[in-house]
Amino acid sequence: MNKPHSVGIVEPKVAHFDSPLELTSKSRLDQYQLVYETYGELNSDASNAVLVCHALSSDHHAAGRHAGQKQSTGWWDALVGPGKPLDTERFFIVCSNNLGGCSGSTGPSSINPDTNKPYGPDFPIVTVSDWVESQARLSDQLGIQQWAAVIGGSLGGMQVLQWSISFPERVRHAIVIASTAKLTAQNIGFNDVARQAIRTDPEFFDGNYYQHGTRPRRGLRVARMLGHITYLSDDSMAHKFGRSLQQKAKFDYEFTPEFEVESYLRYKGDQFVDRFDANTYLLMTKALDYFDPAADADGTLSGALSAASANFLVVSFTSDWRFSVERSREIVRALQSNKLNVSYAEVESPHGHDSFLLSIDHYTSVLRAYMNRIHHDLNSYGEVTG
Amino acid sequence: MNKPHSVGIVEPKVAHFDSPLELTSKSRLDQYQLVYETYGELNSDASNAVLVCHALSSDHHAAGRHAGQKQSTGWWDALVGPGKPLDTERFFIVCSNNLGGCSGSTGPSSINPDTNKPYGPDFPIVTVSDWVESQARLSDQLGIQQWAAVIGGSLGGMQVLQWSISFPERVRHAIVIASTAKLTAQNIGFNDVARQAIRTDPEFFDGNYYQHGTRPRRGLRVARMLGHITYLSDDSMAHKFGRSLQQKAKFDYEFTPEFEVESYLRYKGDQFVDRFDANTYLLMTKALDYFDPAADADGTLSGALSAASANFLVVSFTSDWRFSVERSREIVRALQSNKLNVSYAEVESPHGHDSFLLSIDHYTSVLRAYMNRIHHDLNSYGEVTG
Repeated sequence: MNKPHSVGIVEPKVAHFDSPLELTSKSRLDQYQLVYETYGELNSDASNAVLVCHALSSDHHAAGRHAGQKQSTGWWDALVGPGKPLDTERFFIVCSNNLGGCSGSTGPSSINPDTNKPYGPDFPIVTVSDWVESQARLSDQLGIQQWAAVIGGSLGGMQVLQWSISFPERVRHAIVIASTAKLTAQNIGFNDVARQAIRTDPEFFDGNYYQHGTRPRRGLRVARMLGHITYLSDDSMAHKFGRSLQQKAKFDYEFTPEFEVESYLRYKGDQFVDRFDANTYLLMTKALDYFDPAADADGTLSGALSAASANFLVVSFTSDWRFSVERSREIVRALQSNKLNVSYAEVESPHGHDSFLLSIDHYTSVLRAYMNRIHHDLNSYGEVTG
Repeated sequence: MNKPHSVGIVEPKVAHFDSPLELTSKSRLDQYQLVYETYGELNSDASNAVLVCHALSSDHHAAGRHAGQKQSTGWWDALVGPGKPLDTERFFIVCSNNLGGCSGSTGPSSINPDTNKPYGPDFPIVTVSDWVESQARLSDQLGIQQWAAVIGGSLGGMQVLQWSISFPERVRHAIVIASTAKLTAQNIGFNDVARQAIRTDPEFFDGNYYQHGTRPRRGLRVARMLGHITYLSDDSMAHKFGRSLQQKAKFDYEFTPEFEVESYLRYKGDQFVDRFDANTYLLMTKALDYFDPAADADGTLSGALSAASANFLVVSFTSDWRFSVERSREIVRALQSNKLNVSYAEVESPHGHDSFLLSIDHYTSVLRAYMNRIHHDLNSYGEVTG
């Protein structure tokens, strides 16, 4: 086996859909497109395909780089590539930008064909179920009847759960990382603070800022700064920043940043505002809030998962306080009570919720071992049916 | 003993100071005033005086009601009054609004005598040490040479610690509740998000909003919503709100509040904006950030507390994640290593940081027992010296 390396230069593709999509909200999208990337080769019986579902602020660009852009490494490049846990020499990996996104899939900043103006606030609220439905249509276009695995962290893990519920026969393995079957009141509270920061920015114009030539930069920046705190752990922030001062020996007793942590959060906020659309941020946080498959069943998660037939791998991180290990254990218990195959790893990590994006030894070895098993079954499967 | 009751109608008093106050920041206030309230009677040898220090968003009005205002119960009325743990039939209780405040003490919204305009952003940054210095001058005016106890929760607890360091001979008992000897990076991060929400509000005008006839309502509202989440615990929010919907049976799939927790936080935010000044909020969060007595000593808290001679009671609450029990234990360890008398109570409470404001059985009985002991010593003291 070669040393793990990058998939190199990748190019996004676009899939168009002209058949109307009925949404959970009862709204409808008559036509839409999804931008996506693929890494590796689909095998002859299309049995080695893996779908990667992205989280709140990422997109279809999971691995490799875009031509001519140095700072364009994919968000999961640590885990996706030749010789990496999601090995592109074995698997055909697909990642699409979610509907409502701002990276090429149809979303609030896209032109509404009915008005020839950006959708803005008229873009309908989309749910995790809607995303899974749209991803299933993409699977059809790609000729993938069944995914070897559907995998995702955080909001991506919610999509994995929903795939196993909506299309049980299309998912052989479901890998749910640093996720939850529903948000807590605290999670919803943080989301609403972020939304209020954006929506009360005077440059938001009720979501019609595109026509005003403005963007609610200040609100989105605050939202992202807040988000960042919840992605890290108290300990990792203490370790990374502590009370270190920002390039000075003494306090200035002014409102300029005194502590490194202030500069870091402001920098992260500014960076984000340059690349992300506020209306998309709003939609993504709403999708998080609404997700609660148990509520649509008999109130129990095992009821919601009663149709699921996939094999599951569930991974959580000890210092994740956004979606704590207890949230993952709830998922594991529901799967076990349904007599499904489930592996569970509680990974010791100081890095909080963001751990799912990082290359952490225990985490990558768990993923690698699980993917090896899928690959092994794939070959046996090929031998029998091939 | 009578059933505990309210101190009834109270009236704030004002103390003027014409002797300049040199601040930690090297700025100076040539004159200022402190508004304060007192409950109970000072005894003949002025030995029964208790100073209550307030937290971020409260003020001098700790107990009772203001005449003609029904909704004006003091913020610590649960604990301060005749027959209550801070028993006004035994103690003379003083609470002043901190310098930089917005309830009557000199602060950013006060008129700067040099310009005849509100101070606004020219009001200097004040620290916990500065507050303690100003409170010591108030003590002088009141004829109180030594406090029987100085007591406070959260930011109030920091003032108690500082009192024991700055004026060891003036504090017999120091009661530090739900506090910390310094903020963590996460704490500072949350504070900076709140500040950025306020400071980037276009109606902030660099703090000169008084002259513009505006107020940064949106930013202050977001700051308070965020604060509220950190004052509650994940569990208490789950218990209080869970995923309950806001007066509806089904989701609307709109940006109006769907969940009760959203309405609650927005309501709390709106309420706060009506009563609080944004510049004061900024100053209070900065005072929190800067507080770190160990940094001014040899880097250790025991070093910082080496001059302290008070008897200490430290109280923490199990579900407080803003200032966790570990922060209180650090204080206790430093006091113990200095061979000081210290009692410590870790109170089981689901209510998070806000617990210090509430009447919780274990908490009130700890406070009552400790204050009884002070009262008992007071009488012995009186018998010996009187």
